[in-house]
Amino acid sequence: MTDKIKSKDNALVKEIAKLSTSAKMRRESGLYVCEGVRLCCDAVLSGVRIKYFLYTAEAYEKNKESASAVCQAADRCYEADKTVFRKMCDTDTPQGFLCVIQKDSGSILKEVKKGLRYAALERIQDPSNLGTILRTAEAMDLDGVILSSDCCDIYSPKVVRGSMGAVFRLPFMTAEDFTGYVGNLGEIGIRTYASTPRNAKSVNDIDFSEGGVMLIGNEGNGLTDKTIAACTERVMIPMKGRAESLNASAAAAILLYQLTK
Amino acid sequence: MTDKIKSKDNALVKEIAKLSTSAKMRRESGLYVCEGVRLCCDAVLSGVRIKYFLYTAEAYEKNKESASAVCQAADRCYEADKTVFRKMCDTDTPQGFLCVIQKDSGSILKEVKKGLRYAALERIQDPSNLGTILRTAEAMDLDGVILSSDCCDIYSPKVVRGSMGAVFRLPFMTAEDFTGYVGNLGEIGIRTYASTPRNAKSVNDIDFSEGGVMLIGNEGNGLTDKTIAACTERVMIPMKGRAESLNASAAAAILLYQLTK
Repeated sequence: MTDKIKSKDNALVKEIAKLSTSAKMRRESGLYVCEGVRLCCDAVLSGVRIKYFLYTAEAYEKNKESASAVCQAADRCYEADKTVFRKMCDTDTPQGFLCVIQKDSGSILKEVKKGLRYAALERIQDPSNLGTILRTAEAMDLDGVILSSDCCDIYSPKVVRGSMGAVFRLPFMTAEDFTGYVGNLGEIGIRTYASTPRNAKSVNDIDFSEGGVMLIGNEGNGLTDKTIAACTERVMIPMKGRAESLNASAAAAILLYQLTK
Repeated sequence: MTDKIKSKDNALVKEIAKLSTSAKMRRESGLYVCEGVRLCCDAVLSGVRIKYFLYTAEAYEKNKESASAVCQAADRCYEADKTVFRKMCDTDTPQGFLCVIQKDSGSILKEVKKGLRYAALERIQDPSNLGTILRTAEAMDLDGVILSSDCCDIYSPKVVRGSMGAVFRLPFMTAEDFTGYVGNLGEIGIRTYASTPRNAKSVNDIDFSEGGVMLIGNEGNGLTDKTIAACTERVMIPMKGRAESLNASAAAAILLYQLTK
């Protein structure tokens, strides 16, 4: 049941190329792309809905078992020429495996519960940072991630790749009114920890046994003042060195580790 | 004393463009490049030797104080056209500030001492990971970093940028025989901690009060077996989630934080 695509001008190829580069297109279509043998297999194992699976003949031959597993899980499969692949992919040297995935076929975070553990990200703008933070969040077994609507798109190929597929599985939500949402959590008795160097308690001195939400802010500017004010507590990573601050994903790793250990 | 460069074919411009892209060129010339207003000012404050400072007229105008400080510190200054700048720079939208720096004019790690704290990196290959780890190492006030000779080049523009200038200040050395070097440290009574998920103690249960060297391995494969065998202890980050492992820079953040806290 496999069609062959030979032309770069094929309509599906053009659509996929656009899904790789345009967050707007991903939003409007409810679809996103993942590339690579490992990630495509991971998508199958994670149970997300795969609308299309595209591969090169060479990649199929080299990874027969994986290819047939992905084929079986996908709604439709296409063999595509190498040149066609290069047009669709975000990577310089595509592996010849690509899936188009239905958004929201993974898990959705509907409710933040007392006693559980979450991360909330405000305006994280670098896709590699966001991917790394989501990967860390999954490794730390967080119960979900809340994103401000001005974070970069979690469905961009770079984030999907950097997250090592955590995007398929982590429950998350986007809060349009991020600050307001965080404030409400505090009001219903959920602890919300603003990470900020100002007037904050060392992360070593906080008892996280009640769980709560760890808030991590933008790479250059940290959390906004209004979001910090909306949180129930402030935490900082004690630093001795000269570096002004840690990279957002390094800070997140330390904070989420402390929250969950 | 400022010369003007208008042509992309200028010999210095060609040399700098090559320094931006070629590790071999950086090795042979003993020079490297840093870009951006903030990093160039940081280079001045860090006291490294700046051979050339190049700027656009526009950037000079916008950052007069910084520009004149860098000019004063540099051996020679050049004003260059915007088009020339784009040719030299690794970034898509150069800020119009660029320094050529003499390697080893920062600090060099000559000796690993008992009681102090270090990171040792084996075959870290991604420049953003390496940059982030160096930035973390500085934030944690480590006493130095040891690199295996197959790590990516710490003087590549991406690493310099990602490190937020830690490259200018952190004492480091490259060990040609990395495994042998680590083994020797153990023999003279310095604790060496191999981070590995196999047969390792949780990082939470280790008493780091004696200091030592935290070893972090390659992104995909971790530390080599022979390096693990050469270490005095093994440590792991306890993980509950599904993610196979943390990103190398996230793992490094947690491990170095624990080592130094």
